[in-house]
Amino acid sequence: MSAFLVPELTKKREVDNIIRDTLDKVLVLRFGRASERDCILLDEILHKSCRGVSKFASIALVDADAEEIQVYIKYFDVTILPSTVFFFNAHHMKMNSGSADHTKWVGSFYSKQDFIDVVEVIFRGAMKGKPIVSCPLPPERIPKFQLLFKGV
Amino acid sequence: MSAFLVPELTKKREVDNIIRDTLDKVLVLRFGRASERDCILLDEILHKSCRGVSKFASIALVDADAEEIQVYIKYFDVTILPSTVFFFNAHHMKMNSGSADHTKWVGSFYSKQDFIDVVEVIFRGAMKGKPIVSCPLPPERIPKFQLLFKGV
Repeated sequence: MSAFLVPELTKKREVDNIIRDTLDKVLVLRFGRASERDCILLDEILHKSCRGVSKFASIALVDADAEEIQVYIKYFDVTILPSTVFFFNAHHMKMNSGSADHTKWVGSFYSKQDFIDVVEVIFRGAMKGKPIVSCPLPPERIPKFQLLFKGV
Repeated sequence: MSAFLVPELTKKREVDNIIRDTLDKVLVLRFGRASERDCILLDEILHKSCRGVSKFASIALVDADAEEIQVYIKYFDVTILPSTVFFFNAHHMKMNSGSADHTKWVGSFYSKQDFIDVVEVIFRGAMKGKPIVSCPLPPERIPKFQLLFKGV
């Protein structure tokens, strides 16, 4: 596995293009600050998973501090890092995790397998034309601030 | 102005198609219950505006009670009716109105001109590649429950 499999994006144009050009696969866009603990944990999982999910998903890391990225930080209402957003054929895929926010995954995952399970469910839903899916993980495997998110 | 200019949608497939097929114009998708007061007010504005905005926007009314539409009600987190969502070339356009919710317009507008101003700003932003724009209306012309929305 080489680093180039998980591109790191700092420009709006790069984000625009990867959203538009990722076809028939789930695009996993992680907005984060690579030096912070939760982001380090998440990035490890993403790097370890990218080969295994490559048939149905692509992963990219977006630098949440880059100036050009702020328009997307606003667009996706990113207030906690890392936050991960999913797309399929340029459509923002949403997931009901029992929280008020269906639009993104906030924080890391507890395991590589949890991440893969989530991406598989999004892929299968998208292939059936669903714009929103139910999170396959039990509540205890969903980061807690996800549930508190809207109260911040 | 004839009624057919503002289609009324009750099927998921109809919503999928109009999102996909509205090109180089703002798509204004109103989710509502046509019998209720705020929705009647909004629909009057939409009907009166549709000819004037037709060069840069299309409008469609979605029946928020239709069974097939519930997946979109969930997807857009519609909890107050009417709620209006904007697209440009199949991308969900967002607008910062000073509230916590950038994803939709909740309630009616105070005037036809307010609606036209909002749609024009979205169109101009979209043409410049912006995924999110700032609401051109002053706070007193933004329905109040929009500001309270996230506290519901």
